[in-house]
Amino acid sequence: MTKKTTIKDIADKLEVSPSSVSRALTNEPGVSDDLRERVFDAASRLNYIPNSSAKSLKTSRSKTVGLIVSDIRNPFFLDFMSGVERVLFPREYKFIVCNTGEDRKKEEIYIKWLIGQGVEGILSSPYQDGSNENNALLYRRAMKNNIPVVFYDRLLKEIKVIDSVTLDNRQAIMNGVMYLRECGHERIGICLHRRGIYTIEERYAGFLKACEILRIEVIEDWIIDDATDPVEASKRLKMILGRAHRPTALISTNQYINELLLRVARELKLSVPGELSLMGFDDLSLNDLVDPPITTIRQPVSDMGKIAATLLMGRIDGDSVDRSTVVLKAELLKRESVSVLSGP
Amino acid sequence: MTKKTTIKDIADKLEVSPSSVSRALTNEPGVSDDLRERVFDAASRLNYIPNSSAKSLKTSRSKTVGLIVSDIRNPFFLDFMSGVERVLFPREYKFIVCNTGEDRKKEEIYIKWLIGQGVEGILSSPYQDGSNENNALLYRRAMKNNIPVVFYDRLLKEIKVIDSVTLDNRQAIMNGVMYLRECGHERIGICLHRRGIYTIEERYAGFLKACEILRIEVIEDWIIDDATDPVEASKRLKMILGRAHRPTALISTNQYINELLLRVARELKLSVPGELSLMGFDDLSLNDLVDPPITTIRQPVSDMGKIAATLLMGRIDGDSVDRSTVVLKAELLKRESVSVLSGP
Repeated sequence: MTKKTTIKDIADKLEVSPSSVSRALTNEPGVSDDLRERVFDAASRLNYIPNSSAKSLKTSRSKTVGLIVSDIRNPFFLDFMSGVERVLFPREYKFIVCNTGEDRKKEEIYIKWLIGQGVEGILSSPYQDGSNENNALLYRRAMKNNIPVVFYDRLLKEIKVIDSVTLDNRQAIMNGVMYLRECGHERIGICLHRRGIYTIEERYAGFLKACEILRIEVIEDWIIDDATDPVEASKRLKMILGRAHRPTALISTNQYINELLLRVARELKLSVPGELSLMGFDDLSLNDLVDPPITTIRQPVSDMGKIAATLLMGRIDGDSVDRSTVVLKAELLKRESVSVLSGP
Repeated sequence: MTKKTTIKDIADKLEVSPSSVSRALTNEPGVSDDLRERVFDAASRLNYIPNSSAKSLKTSRSKTVGLIVSDIRNPFFLDFMSGVERVLFPREYKFIVCNTGEDRKKEEIYIKWLIGQGVEGILSSPYQDGSNENNALLYRRAMKNNIPVVFYDRLLKEIKVIDSVTLDNRQAIMNGVMYLRECGHERIGICLHRRGIYTIEERYAGFLKACEILRIEVIEDWIIDDATDPVEASKRLKMILGRAHRPTALISTNQYINELLLRVARELKLSVPGELSLMGFDDLSLNDLVDPPITTIRQPVSDMGKIAATLLMGRIDGDSVDRSTVVLKAELLKRESVSVLSGP
């Protein structure tokens, strides 16, 4: 029987004091982020099994998980939380909501709190911006700290070990473009929430792929790559739609943008779908009461919540199966915002 | 100096074992609800100051509060949570979301968890159904356990000691009815979410009061007193609207009902506002993109969240001022779902 790794072994290895190692492992203050990272790496390499801190958390069972959301005002999260809650409540688990507001630093603070607080797991739609600036290291630290993480909606591609539930975003948009093409549209623009976010990159890739297959010309100018500032995005859209050669159809990539596109069309007095067709993304029940009822790509959001929570509960209960990557299928709700054009 | 009250004193008083008292005070299992209640009452009467359990929670500072919501799918809560989070985050507090789904038993379980978990405070829109069946006792127990509670949106009138933030619901509906009267409407119906809930009773009282002042006849049949089952409510509405003598305007009492009324009008092919005027309650940004844009009573929901969280933080920090009862003013957003009738 090999000797069990102790805190002293880690301290010797890193040439620091055992108390620093202990503080790092229990997420107490007084240790630099860098050292904390090195301690966790060494602990992992040496197969260190905590017997007080992490284990006592496990034993005392906080029965609480963290839910990291990127923007709490997005109606997506209502359905998502209701799905999560349906799985957690019967198992006597609760969730702490952490709204990052698309801010990396805020997410960092929240993850550290959650680890320090002794949550038993984390559900996250992680921050990302297209650069390598994200909190992958912290998610790894949580995992090393015996706090399983499940990503939902978004992924950090550099982490291969975390379970995930996402939409088949590419296929969703490809089906949308194919439907537009079926209706005779060949001049199609797309309004992206923001480049760099996993879901948005996937949706954009689906758009490009569909255009390629269907031999639809991609006009750079008709791709709005950041609609997070609605005023700026409106300006761009008005410019594009004001020209003689303009798209006959626009594709949205979330509920905010559905509304933005409708508003812009109204301001320009373009009739929808007569003069401009709109394909929405996400679905609020009100979407079929607007004028016109919006044809939209619906995600099974509540199911996404249920599955994410179920995967997390499995990990908390000790599942050690391979990583699960669940990919869900979107549904195209055909309403009245897409017109059928006569042939060329 | 008087002798400090001990657990033994409470046990002697109630003629039970000290260990039962201890378990009751620390919310451990193995004690009946009845005994727990009596223990808290005795502890309060004898000025018992906990020195281990409750105090250690305070000292260890969970920096977490509970947020009890009545229905997580209602968009009201997105804005509310975003307001709460804006106050809590800078103070390093987090919140656990507890969705009661309008179920008294579920609320009871959540409150007990929150107390047992050592949250530092609770924000709640409490369950109520018009009977005396509610969790007032448990909210009192939380307060006695040094866990301050703030009610938002709804109140339990029998508890006089809890801070609250509510809307001036009566005035909100009175202003709505006055506006309808100004537009020439005298045949007005109202669709209530469910009788017995504080906010709904207040809105109904405002409706009756306004009708009395404006000498508008109240037709019992035009008052839908439970719209929680949309199928049943639709049937009732269709019956009422199918008659020759029918209301010219209907008032809603939440976002779900706004949509319900619009759907029913469409199914009956009644043009809005030509043949039927609608006054909404609550506001989603989509409300002004529906056909027609909905005239609605808007609550300052995000402010309600900020104020509720601020009051709670004050109590956690030890404010011992008198109970605060903050009442906010609604805003009437005049859009296009109310027609102007010509004089009689």
